[in-house]
Amino acid sequence: MGSLDPNLSDAGIHIKGEFKPLDVEEFRKQAHHMVDFIAEYYKNIESYPVLSHVQPGYLRAKLPESAPSAPEPMKNIMDDVKTHIIPGMTHWLSPNFFAYFPATVSSAAFVGEMLCTAFNSVGFNWVASPAATELEMVVMDWLARMLKLPESFMFSGTGGGVIQNTTSESILVTLIAARDKCVSVNGPQCLSKLVVYGSDQTHSTFNKACKLIGLNNVRTIPTKIETSFALSAADLQTTMEVDVAAGLIPLYLCATVGTTSTTAVDPLDELAKVAEKYGVWVHLDAAYGGSACICPEFRNYLDGVERIDSLSFSPHKWLLSYLDCCCLWVKQPDLLTKALSTNPEYLRNQQSELNTVVDYKDWQVGTGRKFKSIRLWLVLRNYGVANIQSHIRSDVRMAKLFEAMVWSDPRFEIVVPTRFALVCFRLKPAGFGSIEYLNRKLLDWINSSGRIYMTHTKVGGVYMLRFAVGATLTEDRHIIAAWKLIKEGANALFTTEVRME
Amino acid sequence: MGSLDPNLSDAGIHIKGEFKPLDVEEFRKQAHHMVDFIAEYYKNIESYPVLSHVQPGYLRAKLPESAPSAPEPMKNIMDDVKTHIIPGMTHWLSPNFFAYFPATVSSAAFVGEMLCTAFNSVGFNWVASPAATELEMVVMDWLARMLKLPESFMFSGTGGGVIQNTTSESILVTLIAARDKCVSVNGPQCLSKLVVYGSDQTHSTFNKACKLIGLNNVRTIPTKIETSFALSAADLQTTMEVDVAAGLIPLYLCATVGTTSTTAVDPLDELAKVAEKYGVWVHLDAAYGGSACICPEFRNYLDGVERIDSLSFSPHKWLLSYLDCCCLWVKQPDLLTKALSTNPEYLRNQQSELNTVVDYKDWQVGTGRKFKSIRLWLVLRNYGVANIQSHIRSDVRMAKLFEAMVWSDPRFEIVVPTRFALVCFRLKPAGFGSIEYLNRKLLDWINSSGRIYMTHTKVGGVYMLRFAVGATLTEDRHIIAAWKLIKEGANALFTTEVRME
Repeated sequence: MGSLDPNLSDAGIHIKGEFKPLDVEEFRKQAHHMVDFIAEYYKNIESYPVLSHVQPGYLRAKLPESAPSAPEPMKNIMDDVKTHIIPGMTHWLSPNFFAYFPATVSSAAFVGEMLCTAFNSVGFNWVASPAATELEMVVMDWLARMLKLPESFMFSGTGGGVIQNTTSESILVTLIAARDKCVSVNGPQCLSKLVVYGSDQTHSTFNKACKLIGLNNVRTIPTKIETSFALSAADLQTTMEVDVAAGLIPLYLCATVGTTSTTAVDPLDELAKVAEKYGVWVHLDAAYGGSACICPEFRNYLDGVERIDSLSFSPHKWLLSYLDCCCLWVKQPDLLTKALSTNPEYLRNQQSELNTVVDYKDWQVGTGRKFKSIRLWLVLRNYGVANIQSHIRSDVRMAKLFEAMVWSDPRFEIVVPTRFALVCFRLKPAGFGSIEYLNRKLLDWINSSGRIYMTHTKVGGVYMLRFAVGATLTEDRHIIAAWKLIKEGANALFTTEVRME
Repeated sequence: MGSLDPNLSDAGIHIKGEFKPLDVEEFRKQAHHMVDFIAEYYKNIESYPVLSHVQPGYLRAKLPESAPSAPEPMKNIMDDVKTHIIPGMTHWLSPNFFAYFPATVSSAAFVGEMLCTAFNSVGFNWVASPAATELEMVVMDWLARMLKLPESFMFSGTGGGVIQNTTSESILVTLIAARDKCVSVNGPQCLSKLVVYGSDQTHSTFNKACKLIGLNNVRTIPTKIETSFALSAADLQTTMEVDVAAGLIPLYLCATVGTTSTTAVDPLDELAKVAEKYGVWVHLDAAYGGSACICPEFRNYLDGVERIDSLSFSPHKWLLSYLDCCCLWVKQPDLLTKALSTNPEYLRNQQSELNTVVDYKDWQVGTGRKFKSIRLWLVLRNYGVANIQSHIRSDVRMAKLFEAMVWSDPRFEIVVPTRFALVCFRLKPAGFGSIEYLNRKLLDWINSSGRIYMTHTKVGGVYMLRFAVGATLTEDRHIIAAWKLIKEGANALFTTEVRME
């Protein structure tokens, strides 16, 4: 690899035609090569340690300080990918990846993303890419029907949906819409009185969003293990009452279906009824759990959705769609667009002026945006809803299989009942070492094997291991092998610790 | 296309193995097909009208109301892409696209994006994907060196960089960091006194970011055509003086290199010197112009960069890299991470606790993020800096060619001198119709031809046409043909209007 030669780079090449960065036949050749490279990566993915063992700073030492002045053959670069990049990766698509929540994928989503990239159309407003805007509107209505959302969230009704990159953005923009609505009614002096609500299980991005826009009155309502870490409507009611009595203004509640720590489900209908009394905007963060709600047996978790103001879920988590993809629906799009619209001269056009179209730049933080819906459109059509439901069910079934194996070993216990495809479990107290210490040791042993990757959480003072089923390539045999490995870890740990006593 | 059959979809298929969304051979087959589909699209791109003639709502009428329950063959879906999607697109990659700013692309970036998608690694923190974090750090330093930024913006020095999706996010997160720094010094009571500064040419997203976080004191300093719409340091000084005298606190200045309307360049060094006196955070938005600064002949636009706090530019605009890619550097990463960090239990890990690594979730709004740097890494290595400079120069040369042709026709005038690859011009007053009316008519005539697509702006009361050179496939012949078409439009307009007099 060369380094930046200032003489050469300053000289430059001035004749167009010598450098063609999008020569069609070169494009075709390179892209076909890359398809095969990726297919081989997927084929061999089980051979890599799931969690890399590299040390911080490993890569900088292997790469030159500057970009090369002269071109390097793609072959050399791909050799470096094999030698330097892949060994430093955490392999999220490995069937032995059970950490965090899985990020699921599919062939249809991949080719959909290729198409999205290839078009490179920037759909900030309708006229800049009519098909991009209109397909997103159609796909968001399709997904809304799959979730049996009321018409009040659909473009075919009175609401609408938009694809954001992440849940963070969905929460941020709805929080801002709620704030601006409140200010328009109560005046700017209300700002310091606004209060927002979540539970101690709400995703950290909710607190972050509040911090970003300077909302400091955040009520983090405690949950209990006895109620599986769900937010209690009675506790919400009490908290809001106290705030109102103190002259404060309840603004926004973030409820969750499928919390990150333990996939807890907040009772949406009950919470929404409480929130209604105080005119509070209710957002449902169903980032993980939302996907499951396309199956009738999970749809009850959305009961009460007709009472709330907005909801979001992330197909990149469980709907086979690769990153980044978070679907947000709002009941009153005008509240969102009032808060987020801009109208610079250079983007003015007849269709926007006539207000006959959706300009998605007014539904998000940024201006530019990709043709994001085409990927989901390909997934939904190429697989069909029934197959996607079967995929969800298969993951849940595998999680239950794992849960049953945990129950079968008296050294372990399940901490909360498995509801979706995450199993929260731990080693039970064993007469030596603290229970947290033991479980930490076990997790270290497991992850440093490189054979599977799991993470932990700590809720209500309880340290537990999280086994998240759902990586697209995971099959029963991986679950069984993972459990075998965990038991081996426990055996090793008990032998060592007992010896050390 | 089928519709959702509730009986079928509720029944589901429970056996794993029947539905394999990531079967490697199926993946390989579909992806190879897609490569050829895209190559054909690129090959034929000139045959499509650049600006679509569809009417709002055209697509909904052609698609079913619900997602299908059963799978549909990919062939049917791709037929619909040809029949329904492509005709409704604005073809951003057409060599005849001269609207907005171009979004440039390349084979290397495409295959880089394929790899980024394929890995699907979620690099919210270091341990979740060490290679993703470390390559981003390396690539951001490479780009910093290409721009000859001081070490104070590099990881190899005392600063650092991060890839955001859009300029909007870069402005938003730095604005928040500046605000929080100020509050930490002056206490929360300073919030209502904070003032931010830009010119009437600053991108609309700056005002939007201020609105999002509730900063209401936004000074929009007027610019003049005589100074090519650059922000005057003297005017900035006066405005800040007045604010300070009124007991307000100047917080943040957004300067621009290459404004959206006319590619105006603010005098960074002079502005930074003024801002320094008041302890103001200076951010440079070089979304468009930044790419050119990798060429020594443009680098002077960054003079004074060592005095400022942060800067961003978007390789998706002019560095051949497809959407979304905005590079942000900050001098004091700790100010960013203090404002944006979260530390939930389920993401805790040894490396983060020891503070030995960068966790990019604390540099952005969202939590999840893709392996974004790999695309830029492939572009920089596969082409080399010299070729990329030649690409910038070739676009500038073509813009000068167009500018010369405009000057050669006495009916037209150049409104501001062409600095990068955008030409701002208009029909001169012609004795009939208002000048704005005439130019609007001309633009309508040109765009409704479908043969090229251009947009307009209006600055300092002057309505003008924007001819943005730089779509990756554009060659001299397209510039020449475009100018011929524009002249034809002028001929048609003058004939009609003179007849109507």
